[in-house]
Amino acid sequence: MTALANQRVAYLNGQILPESEVRVSFRDRGYKYGDAVFDMTRTFGHKVFKLQEHIDRFYRSLRYVRIDPGMSPKEMIQKSEEVLERNMHLLDKHDDYWLGQRVSRGVDNVMGEQPIQTGPTVVIECTPLPLKARANFYRAGLDVVVPSTRRVAPSMLSPRAKTHNYLNMIIGEQEAKATNPNSWAVLLDENGNLAEGIGSNIFIVRDGVVFTPSERYVLPGVSRQTAMDMAKDLGIKLVEGDIDLFDAYVADEAFITSTSFCICPVRSINGNPMAEHAIPGPVTKKLMDAYVKFVNYDWVQQYLRHA
Amino acid sequence: MTALANQRVAYLNGQILPESEVRVSFRDRGYKYGDAVFDMTRTFGHKVFKLQEHIDRFYRSLRYVRIDPGMSPKEMIQKSEEVLERNMHLLDKHDDYWLGQRVSRGVDNVMGEQPIQTGPTVVIECTPLPLKARANFYRAGLDVVVPSTRRVAPSMLSPRAKTHNYLNMIIGEQEAKATNPNSWAVLLDENGNLAEGIGSNIFIVRDGVVFTPSERYVLPGVSRQTAMDMAKDLGIKLVEGDIDLFDAYVADEAFITSTSFCICPVRSINGNPMAEHAIPGPVTKKLMDAYVKFVNYDWVQQYLRHA
Amino acid sequence: MTALANQRVAYLNGQILPESEVRVSFRDRGYKYGDAVFDMTRTFGHKVFKLQEHIDRFYRSLRYVRIDPGMSPKEMIQKSEEVLERNMHLLDKHDDYWLGQRVSRGVDNVMGEQPIQTGPTVVIECTPLPLKARANFYRAGLDVVVPSTRRVAPSMLSPRAKTHNYLNMIIGEQEAKATNPNSWAVLLDENGNLAEGIGSNIFIVRDGVVFTPSERYVLPGVSRQTAMDMAKDLGIKLVEGDIDLFDAYVADEAFITSTSFCICPVRSINGNPMAEHAIPGPVTKKLMDAYVKFVNYDWVQQYLRHA
Amino acid sequence: MTALANQRVAYLNGQILPESEVRVSFRDRGYKYGDAVFDMTRTFGHKVFKLQEHIDRFYRSLRYVRIDPGMSPKEMIQKSEEVLERNMHLLDKHDDYWLGQRVSRGVDNVMGEQPIQTGPTVVIECTPLPLKARANFYRAGLDVVVPSTRRVAPSMLSPRAKTHNYLNMIIGEQEAKATNPNSWAVLLDENGNLAEGIGSNIFIVRDGVVFTPSERYVLPGVSRQTAMDMAKDLGIKLVEGDIDLFDAYVADEAFITSTSFCICPVRSINGNPMAEHAIPGPVTKKLMDAYVKFVNYDWVQQYLRHA
Amino acid sequence: MTALANQRVAYLNGQILPESEVRVSFRDRGYKYGDAVFDMTRTFGHKVFKLQEHIDRFYRSLRYVRIDPGMSPKEMIQKSEEVLERNMHLLDKHDDYWLGQRVSRGVDNVMGEQPIQTGPTVVIECTPLPLKARANFYRAGLDVVVPSTRRVAPSMLSPRAKTHNYLNMIIGEQEAKATNPNSWAVLLDENGNLAEGIGSNIFIVRDGVVFTPSERYVLPGVSRQTAMDMAKDLGIKLVEGDIDLFDAYVADEAFITSTSFCICPVRSINGNPMAEHAIPGPVTKKLMDAYVKFVNYDWVQQYLRHA
Amino acid sequence: MTALANQRVAYLNGQILPESEVRVSFRDRGYKYGDAVFDMTRTFGHKVFKLQEHIDRFYRSLRYVRIDPGMSPKEMIQKSEEVLERNMHLLDKHDDYWLGQRVSRGVDNVMGEQPIQTGPTVVIECTPLPLKARANFYRAGLDVVVPSTRRVAPSMLSPRAKTHNYLNMIIGEQEAKATNPNSWAVLLDENGNLAEGIGSNIFIVRDGVVFTPSERYVLPGVSRQTAMDMAKDLGIKLVEGDIDLFDAYVADEAFITSTSFCICPVRSINGNPMAEHAIPGPVTKKLMDAYVKFVNYDWVQQYLRHA
Repeated sequence: MTALANQRVAYLNGQILPESEVRVSFRDRGYKYGDAVFDMTRTFGHKVFKLQEHIDRFYRSLRYVRIDPGMSPKEMIQKSEEVLERNMHLLDKHDDYWLGQRVSRGVDNVMGEQPIQTGPTVVIECTPLPLKARANFYRAGLDVVVPSTRRVAPSMLSPRAKTHNYLNMIIGEQEAKATNPNSWAVLLDENGNLAEGIGSNIFIVRDGVVFTPSERYVLPGVSRQTAMDMAKDLGIKLVEGDIDLFDAYVADEAFITSTSFCICPVRSINGNPMAEHAIPGPVTKKLMDAYVKFVNYDWVQQYLRHA
Repeated sequence: MTALANQRVAYLNGQILPESEVRVSFRDRGYKYGDAVFDMTRTFGHKVFKLQEHIDRFYRSLRYVRIDPGMSPKEMIQKSEEVLERNMHLLDKHDDYWLGQRVSRGVDNVMGEQPIQTGPTVVIECTPLPLKARANFYRAGLDVVVPSTRRVAPSMLSPRAKTHNYLNMIIGEQEAKATNPNSWAVLLDENGNLAEGIGSNIFIVRDGVVFTPSERYVLPGVSRQTAMDMAKDLGIKLVEGDIDLFDAYVADEAFITSTSFCICPVRSINGNPMAEHAIPGPVTKKLMDAYVKFVNYDWVQQYLRHA
Repeated sequence: MTALANQRVAYLNGQILPESEVRVSFRDRGYKYGDAVFDMTRTFGHKVFKLQEHIDRFYRSLRYVRIDPGMSPKEMIQKSEEVLERNMHLLDKHDDYWLGQRVSRGVDNVMGEQPIQTGPTVVIECTPLPLKARANFYRAGLDVVVPSTRRVAPSMLSPRAKTHNYLNMIIGEQEAKATNPNSWAVLLDENGNLAEGIGSNIFIVRDGVVFTPSERYVLPGVSRQTAMDMAKDLGIKLVEGDIDLFDAYVADEAFITSTSFCICPVRSINGNPMAEHAIPGPVTKKLMDAYVKFVNYDWVQQYLRHA
Repeated sequence: MTALANQRVAYLNGQILPESEVRVSFRDRGYKYGDAVFDMTRTFGHKVFKLQEHIDRFYRSLRYVRIDPGMSPKEMIQKSEEVLERNMHLLDKHDDYWLGQRVSRGVDNVMGEQPIQTGPTVVIECTPLPLKARANFYRAGLDVVVPSTRRVAPSMLSPRAKTHNYLNMIIGEQEAKATNPNSWAVLLDENGNLAEGIGSNIFIVRDGVVFTPSERYVLPGVSRQTAMDMAKDLGIKLVEGDIDLFDAYVADEAFITSTSFCICPVRSINGNPMAEHAIPGPVTKKLMDAYVKFVNYDWVQQYLRHA
Repeated sequence: MTALANQRVAYLNGQILPESEVRVSFRDRGYKYGDAVFDMTRTFGHKVFKLQEHIDRFYRSLRYVRIDPGMSPKEMIQKSEEVLERNMHLLDKHDDYWLGQRVSRGVDNVMGEQPIQTGPTVVIECTPLPLKARANFYRAGLDVVVPSTRRVAPSMLSPRAKTHNYLNMIIGEQEAKATNPNSWAVLLDENGNLAEGIGSNIFIVRDGVVFTPSERYVLPGVSRQTAMDMAKDLGIKLVEGDIDLFDAYVADEAFITSTSFCICPVRSINGNPMAEHAIPGPVTKKLMDAYVKFVNYDWVQQYLRHA
Repeated sequence: MTALANQRVAYLNGQILPESEVRVSFRDRGYKYGDAVFDMTRTFGHKVFKLQEHIDRFYRSLRYVRIDPGMSPKEMIQKSEEVLERNMHLLDKHDDYWLGQRVSRGVDNVMGEQPIQTGPTVVIECTPLPLKARANFYRAGLDVVVPSTRRVAPSMLSPRAKTHNYLNMIIGEQEAKATNPNSWAVLLDENGNLAEGIGSNIFIVRDGVVFTPSERYVLPGVSRQTAMDMAKDLGIKLVEGDIDLFDAYVADEAFITSTSFCICPVRSINGNPMAEHAIPGPVTKKLMDAYVKFVNYDWVQQYLRHA
C-alpha cells in the first residue's frame, strides 16, 4: 500500500504505512495492558534532536520490562530517520515534529488458534508539535498545581522507564485541571517531594542555584539533561535532590522541561507566585538562551509566533 | 464488511466486525497510555455469568478515570449479549468464553487536522477460555510466589478500578515466573500484606475460617464475591482484612479466585506447602462444590477434561 | 470595667470583660506556640447544643497535651452558660452563636522577674455564626478539593485533640482555595485516605450506606456523632473506616458535618460531580431533616434565609 | 502611653509600648491557630548577632505560610534595632537579650461587625536569656533523650518554617522530661533519623568528622550554620545527611546548637554516654572556641558565671 | 549422667540432663543467629497452665520459620510434662515455674567434617518465676515508657512468631530503662500504634470498654487471650484494634498481660498518670479477680507475699 | 582439658578449649534472644586479613547493643591471633579459615540461685571456609533473587551492627531458595532499594561506574570497603547511594562482596541476565584482580581449584 502524498506515514512491524492503517489489534498487549514502552524526541528546524540518547533510554526501558524489540538500537535509529524523512515534506517551515518509537510485547494470541502475530509490535511515528496550544505559556508562564495523587513508587513500577502506563499521571492531572484547566500538574513522589508531570521535569531556582529532583523518582528527561548541561556550561550551580513544597514556595524562579517544551517558565506553584515576577526569570532566561543556541534553532520564537 | 462464518466477531464503536478488523489507531489513548478500563465475565456451559455485576463494576471504573463511554449500562449489556450470541456457534460444547468490554478515552487527534475519531473507543469481545493451559492446576494446585514488587498503592492509582495499566503486575509476575514458570504471582500491598495477582484474588483458610484481603487494596472480584457468598450459604465464617505472610505460612489451605479460575486450590506459598496436603483441601472443596452448584455447571470437570 | 450594652463580653481568667479587653500577652504560650486547646459548640434558636459532650472532649484534649485548666468540667460548663447568657441580648432572632472555651498553658514568664501570670490562660467566648457567608452552600453544594498536603499523623500530633495548631490544615486549605476560592478543603491522612477539613468531617453515601473516616485520623466531631446517631435512628447503615479517592469518586452523595454546618451537602470532589445531582441527595436530605428535628430548630432555613 | 524606665518595651503594629500592653486579641489567628511565624536572634555582649540572616529566614517562613507582613525586611531590621536599643539600658553588663519578630495573619473579625484590626499582627520584642537555668549544661553536658513522638513531616507542615505551631515538639519534650526533667529532647523525623529539638539542632562527631541532619527535616538554624562555618574554617570535615540511632550510639562526641546555646556539649544520648567523656569533647571544644572568637564574646564564660 | 537431687533437670535432644549440662555448641544456629523459636507457659500452684494452647502457638512459630522439630505436638507436651514433674520437688510451696520449649534449626556443621549434630536442637526447661522482683508492681503499678525504637514490622519478621530474635525489643527496653530502671517498655508498631513489650501485651480501659492491639503487630499472648475471655465472661466490651498515644493518654486504666504477670496494673504511660488513680483500677480489678478464679490460684497474693 | 591434636580449639571466657567443649548454657542470652554480636574475618594463604578493621567494627556493634565485652580491642586481637595460631596446623595448604569473635550479654541467672556465670560470654573461633560449596559461583556467576521480605529497618534494629539476630535474613533467603536452591538472596530495604544478603553486600556496574548501597541500610562490610578502595586505586568511579530494581535490571555487571567471597560475579538478578554476559564482567574482573594483588593471594584460583 502506498502512502498518499498528503498523509503522514508510520512504521508498523516492518512496513511503512499511511497513518490511518497503523492500527493494532485489540488483542495487542500494548492496548490491553499498556504492556509497552516508548520514547520520543523532536526536531528543531526539521533536524532531529539527540536521537541516540533517546534510543539509549528506550532500550533501558525495554530491558526493564523485559521486552525484546527484535531490532538493534542502530536499526531503530535508521528506521526512525527513514520515517522522519518520509514525512518531512508535509511539515510547514515553522513547524516541527515529535518522532516516537513504541514497542509492545505483542499480541495475546488465542491458544489453539492461528496466531495473529508473534513477537513484539513496533511502531515508529511522527506527530506535529502542538505549538499553538502551548504558545501562551511562554508569555504568561505555567501555573503548576500539585495534585494529591502521588507518583507511582519505584518499588511498584519504576518512573525511570517510559511506559504505556500513564493512568497514574492522568488521574493526577485531572485533579489539577478540574479547578484550573490551564494548569500544569506536577505530582509528588511517595515521600512528598516534587517528582514530575506528564512527560515533563521540574526545576526551581533559588539564590542563583538551580535544583531538580534526582533521577530516583522521575524519568531522566533528555531535555532535563540538556538544561543541566546548559547550566554547567554557564557556570550555574545545579543540584539534583529532594525538593519539597517549602523549596517550591520560597523559590525565586521555576521552569518545566520536556521534549516539546524544551524549557518553559513557571509563573506560580499552587497559586503561590514565584518571587521573580519576570517571565522568564533571569536564570531561566539564560538557560533558555543557551538551549536555543545549543540546538541552533529559536524554539522560543517558534512558540511565540503561534501565540 | 461481513464476518466470516469461522471467525469471531467483536464490537468496535457501533459496528460488529470480524476480530481481524477490530484494531485501534496507534494514536488511541488506550494504546499510548493504557488510558482505558475494561471488565470481563465468562460463560458457564455457554450461559453468561453475572453480566450485570460486571457492568456495574465497569461503570465504577469508568467514573473513577472520568471516561464517558457514551452508552448506558443497559446498552452495554445488550451489546455484550449480542456479541456473545454472534460468536456462540464457534464454541465447542465443552468450551466457554470470556466476554469483555473495553473503553478507552479515545484518540489523541493531531491539533489542526481532521480528527481521526471523537469520543471514546468501545470494544466488546469474546475470547475462548484457556482451559487446557490451566487444567493441571486443579490437580496439583497452584504454587503461589510473592514477588518483591509491591502492588500500586491506592493513593497512586486505585487497584479497585480495572484499568489497562497492568505493568505493575506484569513486572511482579516476571519475578515469580523467572524462577518458576508455573508459579502464580500474588503481590503484596504497600503495607506488606497479600493483595492480588493478575486478575485474581487470594483466600486462605485456617481453623475452618476463610480469610481474604479486604477491598482496600484489590479489585473486588465478582468471583471473589461469589466465593464469599458460597461461604455464607454454607455457614463458613469469612473474614475480610489484612493477611500477612505469617498468616499465609501457617494457613491450612489457600485458593485463588478469578473469572476464569472460579476457585483454584493452592499447593504452596513461597515454597511453603499448605498444612492440608489434599488438593483441594476440605474447605476449598466445599466452596468449589457450592460454586459448581450455584452456576449449575461443573467447571472443575470442564478443566480436568482438558488435563 | 463594665461591658457596654452593645459589646459582647467574654471570660478571661476569672473575669467577664468586654471582648475588646480580652487580650493575651505576647508571652502567652497559646500565642507563641499554639500551646493551647479549645472546643466549640453552637446554639440553635438561642439554645446551647450538647455542651456536656463538647466539654468532655475538651478535657480529653487537655489531658493529651497535659494542661491543667484549674477548673472542673462542671465549672467550665457553668462559666460557659454564664458567658452565653450575658451575650444573648445582642443576638438577632434569626442568628445564633458559637460558644467556645480555650485554655493555654499560660505565660512564659521571664526568669528572675515578677511573673506576669501563673497558671493557664482560660478564655470563654461567643461568636455570631457566619450564616450569610455559607448560605449558598446549602443551595449549590460544596465543592470539595483534596490538597496535596497531608493531615498531620497521629504519631506526631493527634488530630483527635482540638488544639491551637492549625497551620497544617491552613496550608492545605490554601492549596485548595488558590485555584477555587469557594472550595472546601478535605485533607488526606498519612496513608492517603480522606481525613478531615478545618473543623469539619466528611461523609460519603453509596448504595444507601453512609461511610465516614474512623476516629483514628480525625477529630471526632460532635456533629459527626449526631449525624451518625441520626443514621442509626433512621435505620441507615453507617460504616466508619478508610475512605480513599476511589470511594469518593464513585460515591452517590457526600456531605460535610461541623458545629456550624451541622450537615452541608457536597456537589463535587476534585471536580468529579456526585452521581446524585440533587442538592442535597436523598440520603443526605433524610439525615438533615432528622438533624433539624433532633435539635428542634430549622437551621437549614436559617442558612437559606441569609442566601 | 510611655514606657516606664524599668519596664521593657516591645513593638506592636506600629507602636512601641510597655510589654504589659503588648497583648493580642483572643480573636487573633496567631492565638487561635498558631497562624503566625517568628524568628529570634540574640545579642553577644549587647551586640546583635546576624540579624540580616534571621530576617531573611523570617521572610521565607512568611512566604511559605503566605502571610504578608506589610513591611519590608529592611524596615523589620530597623524596627528590631530600635526595640533593642530602647531596652538596652535594662540589661545587666553580663546579660544578653533574645530579639524576636512575630507576625500573625491578623484577627478573625466577626462578619458584619466593625473590624477589630485589618492586616497582620506584628510584634518585635526582647527577652533576657535564661543563662542561669542552662549554665550547668556547659559543665555536665546535656542528656539527650529521643522520644517516640516523631517530628511533623515536611509533606504536612515544613519544619523549615519557624511557626507558632510547636505542639508536636512540646508533646515530644513532655515524654523526655517525664522521666528526666533535665533531659533535652531531640525528635526523630518521619524516617527514624535524628531531626531536631525545640529550637535546636544536633551534631555528632565521629573519627574527627562532624555530622548534622540535612535541612530537609529541620529548621536551618543560624547557629547551626555558624557551627558549620567554624568547622570549615578549622578544616574539620562536616557532613550533612541522615543520622540514625546507630550513628548516635557509636559517636565520639555530640553537641546541640541554638540561638541561645550557641554550642552546648552532650553527655549522653538515650542514656548511652558519649565515647569521649570530656565535656566538651576535643572537637566540640575547638568549635566552641572558634565560635567565641567569631562573635568576639565569651558566651561560655557568660553561662558558667551563672552556674 | 544423673541429675543431683538439688539441681533442676532439662530436656536436650532426647535426654533429660542436669541443667548445668544443658549446653549448646557455639555452632548451634540458635546461638549464632537466634535461628530458633520458643514458647513458655507457667504453673499456678504447681499445675501447668494451658500447655496445649502454648504448644499450638509454638508449632505455628515453627512453621513460620520452617523448622521441623522432629517431634509431634503430643510428644512435645508429654516431654514438657515429664520435665516439669522431674523438677517439681525443688519448688517451694509458694513458688511456681515457667515451663519452656525451645527448638533451633540445629548446628552449622563444618563441611567435609564429621557432623556435630544433625537435625534440630530441642530444649525443654523449667525456670522459677521472678516473683520477688516483680511483687511491687502489683502494689504501685507499672510505669510504662514508650521508646523511640519501633517494633520490627511484619513484612520483615513477624512479631506473631515467638523467636530467639529479641534484640529489637531489648534495644527498645534499654531506652526506657536508661532513664527509669523500673519502667516497663512498650514499643510502637511501624505505624506508631502501641504494639507490645518484651513478652507482654498491653490493654487500656476507657469508659468501661477494654482495648488491646490486634494480633497484626503483636504476639498473640495466651494470657492476653485469657484476659479477653475473662472480659467476655464478665460482659465487659473488648475491642481489638489500633491504639495510639492519644488513646493511651486519655485512658482511665491500663494493664499488662504476660505468662508470668497474668494481669499487672499500669500506673502511668510516658509519665502521664492514668485517670483512675486506684491500683488496680476497677475494671482491671474485676479482670484480675476473674483470672484468679479461672486458674483457681491466687497469683496476686502469691506476688504480694514476696513484696 | 587439653585439645586433641586433630581437633580445633576455640576461646571461651578465658580458656582455650577443644571445640566440642565450647558450649553455652541454654540460659545464655545469646542463645535465648540472639542477644549477642559478632564479627568475622578470614585468612588468605593462612594470613589473617584486616583484623583491626573487623575488631573496630565489632566494638561499634558492642556499643550499639550496650554490651561490655570486659576486654579491650587489643586483647581481643591478641586472643584472636592466638586461637588462629593454635588451629593453623590443622589447615590444608590450599584452605583458609574464617576467624570470628562473638560476645553475648551473658547468662540469665535464676534469681535467688547461685549464678551460673556473671558477665558476658566471649567466644573466639576458627572455621574452615566453604570453598568447595561456592566454587562454581566463580565460574557461572551468582543468580541473585530479591525476596519480598524487607530488611529490618534502622529505626527498629540497625543493620549496621553485626548481631546474632539473623532471622529476618534467613526468612528472606528461604523465599529465594524455595524456588531456586542455588540462588543468592539480596533483600530490599524498607524503601524498596537493594540492601544486602546474608553477610554480603551487592554492587552493580553501569557505563563503567560502580554503585553500591550506602551504609544507611547495610552492614558496612570490610570486603565492601576493600572493593571500594580497589575501585579508587584503579580510577574507577564509585557511587554509594540508593539502588532500585530499575538500576539492577539495566546494569551491565553486578557482584557480591563478603569476607569469604571477597568478590563474586553475578549472572542474573531476578532472572534478568546482566548485559555483560562474561563471568566476570570486565569491570568486576579488574576489581577481582586488584583484590587478589592487594591481599597477595589468589583466592579466585583457590575457589576454582575446589570446583
